[in-house]
Amino acid sequence: MKLSDAERTAALAGLPGWKMVDGRDAIEREFRFADFNAAFGFMSRAALQAEKLDHHPEWSNVYNRVHVVLSTHDAGGLTAKDVALAGFMNGLLPPAS
Amino acid sequence: MKLSDAERTAALAGLPGWKMVDGRDAIEREFRFADFNAAFGFMSRAALQAEKLDHHPEWSNVYNRVHVVLSTHDAGGLTAKDVALAGFMNGLLPPAS
Repeated sequence: MKLSDAERTAALAGLPGWKMVDGRDAIEREFRFADFNAAFGFMSRAALQAEKLDHHPEWSNVYNRVHVVLSTHDAGGLTAKDVALAGFMNGLLPPAS
Repeated sequence: MKLSDAERTAALAGLPGWKMVDGRDAIEREFRFADFNAAFGFMSRAALQAEKLDHHPEWSNVYNRVHVVLSTHDAGGLTAKDVALAGFMNGLLPPAS
């Protein structure tokens, strides 16, 4: 079920680095790492979790950068699944991030 | 060193599924798999090889699809490194592909 306006405002407040995608009911974040090893390590951990949740990102990678877009296609927009996966991804970062 | 016109024509002839990117000295291919598991498995194997070659793709993934662009930034265009990585990726596909 799509998040209400109040729910998405609250969700984004708890997801540093994420913002709404312009013109689409989805959230995005750009992650930067030290190198490709670190970037793909992040993707691998996120991929395992995505598969476990049966909820998959739209993402791209160029060397040390990973750009992620999350939206729930079945629901036609942002749901709690996206918030959960975004939170998991943020949790993969070192404490300082 | 960037490939000559003759070299890139020959290289592309040996790389089924790959084509030049419009407006850029790079090659691209869209790969489709049965599911996310297969798509990310492909990406994982390609990532290990990319790291080994110290030559990395620009790529994106949405569920069972992986779109790859290869170009050699240091050389400002297509080189033998791109041909090698593209050939490796094709080699990961089942024989029928």
